[in-house]
Amino acid sequence: MSYVSLPILNNFGVYMDIITGFPSTMMDDYQLNIIDILRYAAETYHSQKVISRISDNKTISYTYKELLERVSKLAHGLVELGVKQGERIGILEWNTHRFLELYFSVPCIGGVLVALNPRLHTNELAYIIKHSGIKRIFFNSDFTDLITSIDRYLDISEYILLDRQSGDIDIEPLLFYDDLLKEKSKYYNFPVLNEKSAYAACYTSGTTGRPKGIFYSHRSTMLHSLIWAIHLNLSIRDVHLQLTPMFHALGWGLWLSFMIVGAMQIFPGRWMVKNPAPIVDIILDKGVTISEGVPTIWRAILDELDKRKFSGEIHMKAVLGGSSPNLKLIRRLRSYGMEVIHTYGFTEGNPITHRSILIPSLNKKCLENGDYALYQGLPAFLVRQVLIDKKGNEIKHGENKVGELIVRGPFISKNYYNYEEDDKAFIVWQSQRWFRTGDACIINECGYLKVVDRYNDMIKSGGEWISTIELENYLVNHPYIMEACVIGIPHDKWGERPLALIVPEDRFRGKLSDEDIYSYLLRKFPKWQLPDKLIYLDSIPKTGTGKYLKRVLKEKYGKEYR
Amino acid sequence: MSYVSLPILNNFGVYMDIITGFPSTMMDDYQLNIIDILRYAAETYHSQKVISRISDNKTISYTYKELLERVSKLAHGLVELGVKQGERIGILEWNTHRFLELYFSVPCIGGVLVALNPRLHTNELAYIIKHSGIKRIFFNSDFTDLITSIDRYLDISEYILLDRQSGDIDIEPLLFYDDLLKEKSKYYNFPVLNEKSAYAACYTSGTTGRPKGIFYSHRSTMLHSLIWAIHLNLSIRDVHLQLTPMFHALGWGLWLSFMIVGAMQIFPGRWMVKNPAPIVDIILDKGVTISEGVPTIWRAILDELDKRKFSGEIHMKAVLGGSSPNLKLIRRLRSYGMEVIHTYGFTEGNPITHRSILIPSLNKKCLENGDYALYQGLPAFLVRQVLIDKKGNEIKHGENKVGELIVRGPFISKNYYNYEEDDKAFIVWQSQRWFRTGDACIINECGYLKVVDRYNDMIKSGGEWISTIELENYLVNHPYIMEACVIGIPHDKWGERPLALIVPEDRFRGKLSDEDIYSYLLRKFPKWQLPDKLIYLDSIPKTGTGKYLKRVLKEKYGKEYR
Repeated sequence: MSYVSLPILNNFGVYMDIITGFPSTMMDDYQLNIIDILRYAAETYHSQKVISRISDNKTISYTYKELLERVSKLAHGLVELGVKQGERIGILEWNTHRFLELYFSVPCIGGVLVALNPRLHTNELAYIIKHSGIKRIFFNSDFTDLITSIDRYLDISEYILLDRQSGDIDIEPLLFYDDLLKEKSKYYNFPVLNEKSAYAACYTSGTTGRPKGIFYSHRSTMLHSLIWAIHLNLSIRDVHLQLTPMFHALGWGLWLSFMIVGAMQIFPGRWMVKNPAPIVDIILDKGVTISEGVPTIWRAILDELDKRKFSGEIHMKAVLGGSSPNLKLIRRLRSYGMEVIHTYGFTEGNPITHRSILIPSLNKKCLENGDYALYQGLPAFLVRQVLIDKKGNEIKHGENKVGELIVRGPFISKNYYNYEEDDKAFIVWQSQRWFRTGDACIINECGYLKVVDRYNDMIKSGGEWISTIELENYLVNHPYIMEACVIGIPHDKWGERPLALIVPEDRFRGKLSDEDIYSYLLRKFPKWQLPDKLIYLDSIPKTGTGKYLKRVLKEKYGKEYR
Repeated sequence: MSYVSLPILNNFGVYMDIITGFPSTMMDDYQLNIIDILRYAAETYHSQKVISRISDNKTISYTYKELLERVSKLAHGLVELGVKQGERIGILEWNTHRFLELYFSVPCIGGVLVALNPRLHTNELAYIIKHSGIKRIFFNSDFTDLITSIDRYLDISEYILLDRQSGDIDIEPLLFYDDLLKEKSKYYNFPVLNEKSAYAACYTSGTTGRPKGIFYSHRSTMLHSLIWAIHLNLSIRDVHLQLTPMFHALGWGLWLSFMIVGAMQIFPGRWMVKNPAPIVDIILDKGVTISEGVPTIWRAILDELDKRKFSGEIHMKAVLGGSSPNLKLIRRLRSYGMEVIHTYGFTEGNPITHRSILIPSLNKKCLENGDYALYQGLPAFLVRQVLIDKKGNEIKHGENKVGELIVRGPFISKNYYNYEEDDKAFIVWQSQRWFRTGDACIINECGYLKVVDRYNDMIKSGGEWISTIELENYLVNHPYIMEACVIGIPHDKWGERPLALIVPEDRFRGKLSDEDIYSYLLRKFPKWQLPDKLIYLDSIPKTGTGKYLKRVLKEKYGKEYR
């Protein structure tokens, strides 16, 4: 049954829903606008602070009240510049207060902030800028070379330099961020936007095809922010460190949730995974209670703590996502007193869609090792999850069969922006439109999701499935192995067979033998799941966002080793 | 500036917002429906329990999964009975699982559940039943006499008895609740309703005029549930006891928030404030972590704990609302280890709009006694609050002037159902429609709200304001005084002067002197604020919901003592 929403006029001049005869203007004309998050934080938690580390030795800090004032000034600056409703504006920046300010000013005057990932190939970046229709770009001087190299392909009306007030930079026309705020009123009368208007956009660059644009709306971002404030149990006593890059899927969007509860927030600026010392300093000095990032980031933080022989406890929530943490990482985090929260999501999911928690009444037997943190876990409120097989039939929870995960909900995309090939990524299932995650998953009898592999990377050998990710995760747990990538190679008899590409740790290069690795793998895997061939490399080719280029590798090694 | 929402069709057959050119079907056609709260709890937290105390010696318990199954069976039963979309259905029941089931089945097939308050006068009840258009009533046999006494004024097609399967009850036609569920399928394909459709209705009976109906929508109730799950920091480890009657403003609505986080919930059925022993048993036996109620209920619980000489700590959140707790009550609760959360709201607010918490970065000097729990505190997310004077001018935070509180937000009513005199309760202020709370308040420089009095009860004596509530609260803190009500009496010289009605504790009846009371009041109040006259009574007339009938009292004593 679908819904009816035709309004009729009643005696009192109020629109009534024809189903219920209920005056529909009663409270529901309120439009969910992201500016209300900032306005609320500024008015209610006015004295709570935002800290921004703008260089190795400079940190600035202001209150939520001052943040709203700066955002208002910036809004005046943008309007003066000629920014129109619906205009797309690009940004290339680290996690600073400036990124935060633009995430409010641009969308809340009716523009759309398009977050650009500086790690992408220049071709991809140029494509995204053109495809989304960006005419103005805010950028950090660290990305000057990047801008210079693609400027000739673009049609940009203005560049705005974020972190400097002058400088001999050969880009034109060039404006300066601080000038936009100068001498502006600290009050701005933000418009009420239709809640379904676009708020910001991120592009996902898969391992295949062109980047695809996801436009988040004010409404979807608001619902995501509310629901994750609940599921992560955020509180005004939290101190949040924004580790995930803000150009990557809204930086996971939790900085908005933290403003709803009024928590203090720290934006760490530029830092490198190979030098996590400044991050560990912040965690210890500022009493950080929660942060989020991919496993690689948490490993770097742990290595730094190990190096410092840190002996205390760090009572913080470590939110992991992006890829699955293994048991070793989970235990290392816990050994420092951290609570591990394993989350799962994707750019199309606004972005977080799952998290793992323990249900008190649950029989723990349904969890591997009794440990919920090994699972992607339970869907977020209002997210519906289904596993389907290749024919589109549902695989029920607890069937212990691998299927592709499809999801839908009020903050999950139903299409890409101006993209013709949507049909591959979305599916109509039981008369509803669902997003195909492309992830091969199992949902156990208790409803816990486990991602096993990318659905297209799974290897079918002699009619049985082999998970490349399980092999990879176990391989990188070997103390001599730094990276491992497993791919399926066509095989005349078995259909497909696994092949492993291995990057040893520097000091063990040339010292690893096939025998070592096979005997290690046999501790966990049956013989028929072992790779037919092990190949040792110095590095494995990856995308701008660090994913293995499996399609390219399959093609290359498929020809060579078939 | 207002918003634009006309859609245009783009090349790919997707509706685009004309402001942003953004495909608006991307994720936002999802309708927020309350059935999704139950469906989510049933699928995700399937093993978590609901406990319902249906009589003094009988308790039943089932899981959220079973709740959805029963709600589905009931939905089949309702449809078979002929319930139509938009139909209003009445309920007279204690806090049991049956109330819970009806709060899902009725609205989620498209009906509207109208919660009837059995404490109201029969005239008022009959009015509400007719005004809302109720044709079917579910009732507990405890309310048989009530039904019998008003039946002749009504046009009811069916009565459904909730708690019994038979019985010589002289009401016709009579059906039985359990029969509706019998032999029904445990699956029901709930329709997707427009999120702005009515979910349920409550009537507020003020001290003046006819009862006024507030129809909550699915959307407003969903947003209220999400926002309060955040502000009260609810978690799956909570054990929630539903103390506030579910017929009173959706029972404050938190039982929906607790389902979003998957907490266990207990519905205590029938109990009386004068015998809180069963409630204290539940709190101690079941490890309750949070409950909510008016100060009177908490006082009864504390008295029972005192009586039992309970010496342990009870680590639970005591959520207080309905009227202001005084410092004595707050300290008594804390002395048992409870965390006090002072909330504020009204039926028109869906219903909770404020709560008091401590902002860590705050200078505590702006709080009286340094204690945030004495304040109604901070508005909920998306609730905007303003104080206005009689001329409609805004009183700024920290001005230390009393004004009337007006509020608006996505879960705050903008009108009453079919009610011509809306203009008294709502106000257009800065081109927006706001609800006038009728409460006289102060908002301090830190933004904390304090309710001082009802705006119309405030006494203006010689140009200065005297708060009747402050006098009353201080009077009832006197160990010999049980109840106190202060009203303004016309005075030729001063305009108005206070008069106090006092009910002494039973054992001190006749033993209280004016002198005792005046010397007690002088410890806190200046002489000019003291009541001109003290009157000792055995009881003070109240409304069905326990509010003093101040308008009636003012009339009576105004004539007598002018």
